[in-house]
Amino acid sequence: MRAARMHGYNQPLVLEDVPIPDSKPDEVLLKVTAAGMCRTDVQLVDGYFRKYAQPSFPITPGHEIVGVIQKIGSTVSKAAGLQEGDQAVLVGGWGDGTCRHCQRGDTQICAHGQWPGFGPYGGYGEYLPVPARYLIKVDKRYNLKAEQLAPLTDAGLTPYRGIKKLRDAGALGPNRVLAVLGIGGLGAYAVQYAKLLGAGATVVAFARNAEKLAVAKDFGADHVFSTKGKSLDDVRKELTEATGQGEIDAVIDCAGAEEMIQMGFGLLSVAGHYSSVGLVGDKVSLPLFPLVAREYTYHGSFWGNYNDLSEVIALAQQGKIRHAVKPIRFEDINKNLDLLRTGDIVGRVVVTF
Amino acid sequence: MRAARMHGYNQPLVLEDVPIPDSKPDEVLLKVTAAGMCRTDVQLVDGYFRKYAQPSFPITPGHEIVGVIQKIGSTVSKAAGLQEGDQAVLVGGWGDGTCRHCQRGDTQICAHGQWPGFGPYGGYGEYLPVPARYLIKVDKRYNLKAEQLAPLTDAGLTPYRGIKKLRDAGALGPNRVLAVLGIGGLGAYAVQYAKLLGAGATVVAFARNAEKLAVAKDFGADHVFSTKGKSLDDVRKELTEATGQGEIDAVIDCAGAEEMIQMGFGLLSVAGHYSSVGLVGDKVSLPLFPLVAREYTYHGSFWGNYNDLSEVIALAQQGKIRHAVKPIRFEDINKNLDLLRTGDIVGRVVVTF
Amino acid sequence: MRAARMHGYNQPLVLEDVPIPDSKPDEVLLKVTAAGMCRTDVQLVDGYFRKYAQPSFPITPGHEIVGVIQKIGSTVSKAAGLQEGDQAVLVGGWGDGTCRHCQRGDTQICAHGQWPGFGPYGGYGEYLPVPARYLIKVDKRYNLKAEQLAPLTDAGLTPYRGIKKLRDAGALGPNRVLAVLGIGGLGAYAVQYAKLLGAGATVVAFARNAEKLAVAKDFGADHVFSTKGKSLDDVRKELTEATGQGEIDAVIDCAGAEEMIQMGFGLLSVAGHYSSVGLVGDKVSLPLFPLVAREYTYHGSFWGNYNDLSEVIALAQQGKIRHAVKPIRFEDINKNLDLLRTGDIVGRVVVTF
Amino acid sequence: MRAARMHGYNQPLVLEDVPIPDSKPDEVLLKVTAAGMCRTDVQLVDGYFRKYAQPSFPITPGHEIVGVIQKIGSTVSKAAGLQEGDQAVLVGGWGDGTCRHCQRGDTQICAHGQWPGFGPYGGYGEYLPVPARYLIKVDKRYNLKAEQLAPLTDAGLTPYRGIKKLRDAGALGPNRVLAVLGIGGLGAYAVQYAKLLGAGATVVAFARNAEKLAVAKDFGADHVFSTKGKSLDDVRKELTEATGQGEIDAVIDCAGAEEMIQMGFGLLSVAGHYSSVGLVGDKVSLPLFPLVAREYTYHGSFWGNYNDLSEVIALAQQGKIRHAVKPIRFEDINKNLDLLRTGDIVGRVVVTF
Repeated sequence: MRAARMHGYNQPLVLEDVPIPDSKPDEVLLKVTAAGMCRTDVQLVDGYFRKYAQPSFPITPGHEIVGVIQKIGSTVSKAAGLQEGDQAVLVGGWGDGTCRHCQRGDTQICAHGQWPGFGPYGGYGEYLPVPARYLIKVDKRYNLKAEQLAPLTDAGLTPYRGIKKLRDAGALGPNRVLAVLGIGGLGAYAVQYAKLLGAGATVVAFARNAEKLAVAKDFGADHVFSTKGKSLDDVRKELTEATGQGEIDAVIDCAGAEEMIQMGFGLLSVAGHYSSVGLVGDKVSLPLFPLVAREYTYHGSFWGNYNDLSEVIALAQQGKIRHAVKPIRFEDINKNLDLLRTGDIVGRVVVTF
Repeated sequence: MRAARMHGYNQPLVLEDVPIPDSKPDEVLLKVTAAGMCRTDVQLVDGYFRKYAQPSFPITPGHEIVGVIQKIGSTVSKAAGLQEGDQAVLVGGWGDGTCRHCQRGDTQICAHGQWPGFGPYGGYGEYLPVPARYLIKVDKRYNLKAEQLAPLTDAGLTPYRGIKKLRDAGALGPNRVLAVLGIGGLGAYAVQYAKLLGAGATVVAFARNAEKLAVAKDFGADHVFSTKGKSLDDVRKELTEATGQGEIDAVIDCAGAEEMIQMGFGLLSVAGHYSSVGLVGDKVSLPLFPLVAREYTYHGSFWGNYNDLSEVIALAQQGKIRHAVKPIRFEDINKNLDLLRTGDIVGRVVVTF
Repeated sequence: MRAARMHGYNQPLVLEDVPIPDSKPDEVLLKVTAAGMCRTDVQLVDGYFRKYAQPSFPITPGHEIVGVIQKIGSTVSKAAGLQEGDQAVLVGGWGDGTCRHCQRGDTQICAHGQWPGFGPYGGYGEYLPVPARYLIKVDKRYNLKAEQLAPLTDAGLTPYRGIKKLRDAGALGPNRVLAVLGIGGLGAYAVQYAKLLGAGATVVAFARNAEKLAVAKDFGADHVFSTKGKSLDDVRKELTEATGQGEIDAVIDCAGAEEMIQMGFGLLSVAGHYSSVGLVGDKVSLPLFPLVAREYTYHGSFWGNYNDLSEVIALAQQGKIRHAVKPIRFEDINKNLDLLRTGDIVGRVVVTF
Repeated sequence: MRAARMHGYNQPLVLEDVPIPDSKPDEVLLKVTAAGMCRTDVQLVDGYFRKYAQPSFPITPGHEIVGVIQKIGSTVSKAAGLQEGDQAVLVGGWGDGTCRHCQRGDTQICAHGQWPGFGPYGGYGEYLPVPARYLIKVDKRYNLKAEQLAPLTDAGLTPYRGIKKLRDAGALGPNRVLAVLGIGGLGAYAVQYAKLLGAGATVVAFARNAEKLAVAKDFGADHVFSTKGKSLDDVRKELTEATGQGEIDAVIDCAGAEEMIQMGFGLLSVAGHYSSVGLVGDKVSLPLFPLVAREYTYHGSFWGNYNDLSEVIALAQQGKIRHAVKPIRFEDINKNLDLLRTGDIVGRVVVTF
């Protein structure tokens, strides 16, 4: 099978022909139909995660995976309801199954977890073995394309969980302003979830790039603001003119750049909630007094679990998600990694097989 | 001023001319522009609440009140931001201000509370004195009509709070079915909130009357079902055909009829939530085993508080609420009470002055 | 091996010698050291669940199970950390693993679930095969006896989950009264959890039997009340004398008798929470108006999940749970089922092997 | 009356004789019996809050206030249940009453709020006028001394709210470790609340000062650790030895020093919660990746509201709070401010009149 593999840090992936991997009795062999390309893949190649984990090479990246079931292991439970030929998306965070996080379904934050594409086989190769319990079937009747489905497993999942945290914390409602920071791969979905889960909240988007802001507007943001070259006071003024208030009540941060975080907190209202899913930056640096005295809540939110992804797929099947994807060929993976590195891709690039 | 007053149980209101009431230094004198007519007014006249409270006559009913500020008392705080001539809606449940419910804002469930229209002056008279803190200003720029605003203070508020309880309990989401039971004055709003707060939930409506179901459909219900003459199994079958599942995950019950409650619980999914705001019936009678073993949660929800009403008004100002109101003249109050009693009014009848 | 099996409804269990069951590659064979006897076993024998499920005979009852690991299947994950000879308790509600409840860990309410002792092999036999993921290891260093551990898996687990629901709903705190209704097998634990999770709440216990009330008092209840022959007003008066208030803010109902439920709701404060775990009765019958207008919340709560049981075991290991168990011999099972049927057993009867 | 007043930054308070202030018709005139001395008073004098607010001098500091009702204004509601001679504590954050935070009772975070002792008359003077709704009566039957009550309104209130946030977020339970950082005026209470609200959590305390750690141990901490001169790894090692785990699941930070915050987050478990109430430092500086990928939640928590203080007073009346107070004379205020500045006071200093 074809696979684009990483043989070391800071070098292009090697596109090569390798054997189809074996699968165990409790696993399913998945034939990949599409794999989303994520800024995190660039970070993996560039060594961003080096201090947190040391995987052994080669690695087949690609963690946004949709495929067709090729083979079902002999001990896979019938209750899973899987059949050969089924289309399925893959939950990307696999846990040990025994810790209290796994037991609540949050396998993606298991301290002993694994992530396909960061060690185990990823979606930049044509086949991979996966535990049956991490597959969610997608009915073919809904005519969702593989390149639409793949990004839903991370770019379209991560902000969903992040916004759910805001909703469950009571931060969303009709007389609130909800801001989406950063309109890259994740932000384009975030704007849509902000409208769907906001319960009438006014949705505003902040980014540096006009083309991305146009996507945000097109996907439902009530107001969009360019932050390029603007001070906090500039932004506050524009916000006030547009919404009638110079503060935001809740933030979903799909970027994570240090100055963006400062701006987000600088605009936050009393009792405001900040949900952080983007990892562009390295550091959070904030004054303590307003954090305490204005009772801010910061929510770290990581990827999504099985139920989160089921909900995202349900939205997609109902036609409630608009997609901004650009399918590419396997041969163009390295070129597109380079484009992701500079941060100027609008929408999501997806490798299709 | 004109007032329609109740001088005893089970008799028509007396339409009479009475003095404009005095207001105290910490009160505002409100000139009523419209007052919604509610099935609860009929229950008041018919003695439904007799065993819970014994008010002294005469009573001026009418608890869905919008008006214009006529006079502001001398000790009313400037922070309230009220001015003569302002249009304002009235929060209908007034508490003692000291119990833990009042301290959390839930003045409508204060054990020592008062309700204008059930003792204190109500909106079926042209003027009434109100504590300043229960007024919410509505900007005239939004061009909301008095007859649209009045019902928002109860019919349009009560299901809002009821559905918020479902949302805050985590019962709503994209792969859930949310049912609205009863499409009278409250249900027509409930359907809209179900879409706004449902986060992608499929919204279904149940009622006995085809005309009401048409309103539900028009206001956004994904599917509507007549329950007239149907068994639980009949309804389950229709539900399955329409939604792919024979169970409902959450209910907002705007009716409260005993058999409707049994049907609602009979259809409820494991871990289902049932929010009850309607008071047509008298009694809840259910088998214990499924309540426990299927982990149902029942939420009683009563009217709404200041923040709830602020949120509803925000939705109305954003144009996110459709109204189904029928303005009537003061002279026609008794005739419309009779129509309400039979339960066949579609939408909300509002007395305008 | 020895097993006490049910060959039909309404007849004594047959104590017989049967083969040790096989276990599959993903299962563990558990050698039972103790099995708690539960009122539910009586209900099983008496046909209470007949209308909800039709198991095929013979059935080996016993769902409160502790044992020693005899044999570990070949595909059981190492992450489970299990070894032959380990002492372990068994989570009693087994789910299909794929529904949203299972995915959140609530396998005990899975609509396609199974319960050992109600179909699959139960603890009234000496060995049973169990899926590895439902075992929780208990360190032998803590010197917890088998007869203490067994009841923790249901009698000691069920009220724990029920009280957690009250706590998580914000119903417990220093100026609240929390009532435990019914002091049988579950209630004796409930009183202790009420103190541990109550955050300073005043804990009161209600029961009909003086000996049981003495246990409640001994295990930490601040006040105990006999309900035998008392009216609601009688009880309210005693409650007021003891606590200064005639209402209870939260209830954990370990009984479930119809009149007890009516009394519990009759005493409930505004915005009160009622958590129901007991199944003695058949029916809930309540007036609608106070449910709605006083904003009661009713929580059905069933058994407990893996994380709940882990927490209970943690409390036991810390010595924070007092046990009231009476070990009996295998030969005395039928005699003790009869005693359970009359409801007069104080504490928990446990079969030890 | 005597009052110790601030006439400018960075200078001792002036102890002087000034007129008793007037009170308005909706106010109560309170005769102060005791006022706690808080590190925040030192920060006020030293100009820490200068960039956030510019009060006009003179200021009478002192925001931990208990007193006796001297005079009740003519329009104070009877529902408040206050009488001359009553002993009452004062809720210290006064809001505008109209914003959504005030409407939920969180007057202490109102953006237009006022704080007695930071502008309005504080407790370092013998009398002050207060709005009736911010007084909570304390029954004299409980024999709580004024010097015990005063600190409960801030030092004994602030960590209570902070720990409630942890509890309500589901962060506390039997198999969790809850850490108290900093054992000054607040931390000595925090340790006690950690035990009361922890639901069986293991409570550990961290501080630099051995005498303070002894208080923590005495007040119920399961384990105490000195952080003086220790690295993160040192502390983790000691923690592991004592508790069996090298991570903490929840933190209540009563200090707020920058390095302490880093240590706290450095020890935090996956999905850990950090509640921050201390304001010793100026800044939060943390790596972004673990915040997101380990799903940390940070809760800013400020002082407490009316209901929070009612609950604290309830605990005190039940005898569930141990006090570590040192009454001083009015004449010694400046000397004790200096002692507070160096941070070496153990327990709480209280001015009594």
